[in-house]
Amino acid sequence: MNISLQQANQALQQAIDKAVEISVPVNIVIVDNTGYLKAFARMDDALLGSIDIALQKAKTSMLFRMDTEAVGDFLQPGAKAYGLELTNGGLLGFAGGKPITINGQVAGFIGISGGAITQDAQIAQAGSKL
Amino acid sequence: MNISLQQANQALQQAIDKAVEISVPVNIVIVDNTGYLKAFARMDDALLGSIDIALQKAKTSMLFRMDTEAVGDFLQPGAKAYGLELTNGGLLGFAGGKPITINGQVAGFIGISGGAITQDAQIAQAGSKL
Amino acid sequence: MNISLQQANQALQQAIDKAVEISVPVNIVIVDNTGYLKAFARMDDALLGSIDIALQKAKTSMLFRMDTEAVGDFLQPGAKAYGLELTNGGLLGFAGGKPITINGQVAGFIGISGGAITQDAQIAQAGSKL
Amino acid sequence: MNISLQQANQALQQAIDKAVEISVPVNIVIVDNTGYLKAFARMDDALLGSIDIALQKAKTSMLFRMDTEAVGDFLQPGAKAYGLELTNGGLLGFAGGKPITINGQVAGFIGISGGAITQDAQIAQAGSKL
Repeated sequence: MNISLQQANQALQQAIDKAVEISVPVNIVIVDNTGYLKAFARMDDALLGSIDIALQKAKTSMLFRMDTEAVGDFLQPGAKAYGLELTNGGLLGFAGGKPITINGQVAGFIGISGGAITQDAQIAQAGSKL
Repeated sequence: MNISLQQANQALQQAIDKAVEISVPVNIVIVDNTGYLKAFARMDDALLGSIDIALQKAKTSMLFRMDTEAVGDFLQPGAKAYGLELTNGGLLGFAGGKPITINGQVAGFIGISGGAITQDAQIAQAGSKL
Repeated sequence: MNISLQQANQALQQAIDKAVEISVPVNIVIVDNTGYLKAFARMDDALLGSIDIALQKAKTSMLFRMDTEAVGDFLQPGAKAYGLELTNGGLLGFAGGKPITINGQVAGFIGISGGAITQDAQIAQAGSKL
Repeated sequence: MNISLQQANQALQQAIDKAVEISVPVNIVIVDNTGYLKAFARMDDALLGSIDIALQKAKTSMLFRMDTEAVGDFLQPGAKAYGLELTNGGLLGFAGGKPITINGQVAGFIGISGGAITQDAQIAQAGSKL
């Protein structure tokens, strides 16, 4: 199952609604099941440095098919897979990247950046279930 | 003047409407006045190879503040600026990238790829005036 | 439909059989439907410089879902899409990259490099139908 | 001594047999004595993010002619060679990369990724002796 543009736009809108609700402008990336960009929106006043962070979060979540913070457990200095963050052109292991499920099946991935990590996580959560 | 997300989404929708009308699935990139990604949509069945082409068209148009085909006049083998296409991480000089004007003022840039060049140009045109 | 490892290995073997028959050592790349490496073999004495060429051919074929020589028509100096070869991290527009069809459906892509272009094309052809 | 394609395929098959036995789909990379890709297989359902990790493990093992976990001792924060992991386009210092010996002589290198680190190590071990 691979996300359609209509579904991606719905996920994007759910994320924007949450971002507006908690008053933080973010970048929202939706990639498909194998990581190709499907939809994107940069809210007005979102940080320019967060565009690439949102892209990397969506990519990291796709590559390992899990939440970015779960990947992050392997990346910390002292963790057993230290160095992993240098593979695949760079991985990001903090919250804000998640699988998008449609009727319980993974169909794509969302990456959010622009707020505090807990805010990004909240917004990604809002866009992750259709 | 810099394009807002609402305006970018309007340009994006105008482009999609034209693409649907002429039956060709494309990638649509909107960048702001300084080239940062603002909005993106990949229509279902659009070629994966066209994502990067659409990005490069929007970037090329932004860098020189003109239509991509006007930049292209400088890039052909034999043209005086041959080699220019290797600058800025790669330039693309065929139609499908255009300034977006709002009330006659340039506010962002659109890049389209996925169809024949004349189709991409038509779709870019449709999304270039708000 | 996405190629399985067993199917990829069959395509790879068909290509090797043809390469042995016409006595030219090549690199054989099989990527899946969205371009991720699935199987690879470098025949003994195949040129080291051809590893990357085979990868780029498989990628180019995947990105536009056509034979690489069909993409090549757009890349020539003087062609309308001149500059296209600089997108997507580099494209290759000469023969040796092809879709792999299984019961008539595209399931992956093959890239061959190491021989003359006509030899690469012949070997790619041999591996392109299961 | 440099690994032949027939030998690389045998190492690859030994690794796959072990992976099937312990029920974990992995990516298997075989590089020759100087690090050029010789053979590759991605088992069905292996993580896409593990392709690059397997490549990096094989490369790291080749560059220092030792198991990746032995290289890892030098890479940890606090270790004397901290920063080493940024050389050579990125090094990986956890288990899953090993020299392949044929009759006791190093002839190539194997890199495995897709399972837990101990599983990857077990599978690399299985493919490391001909």
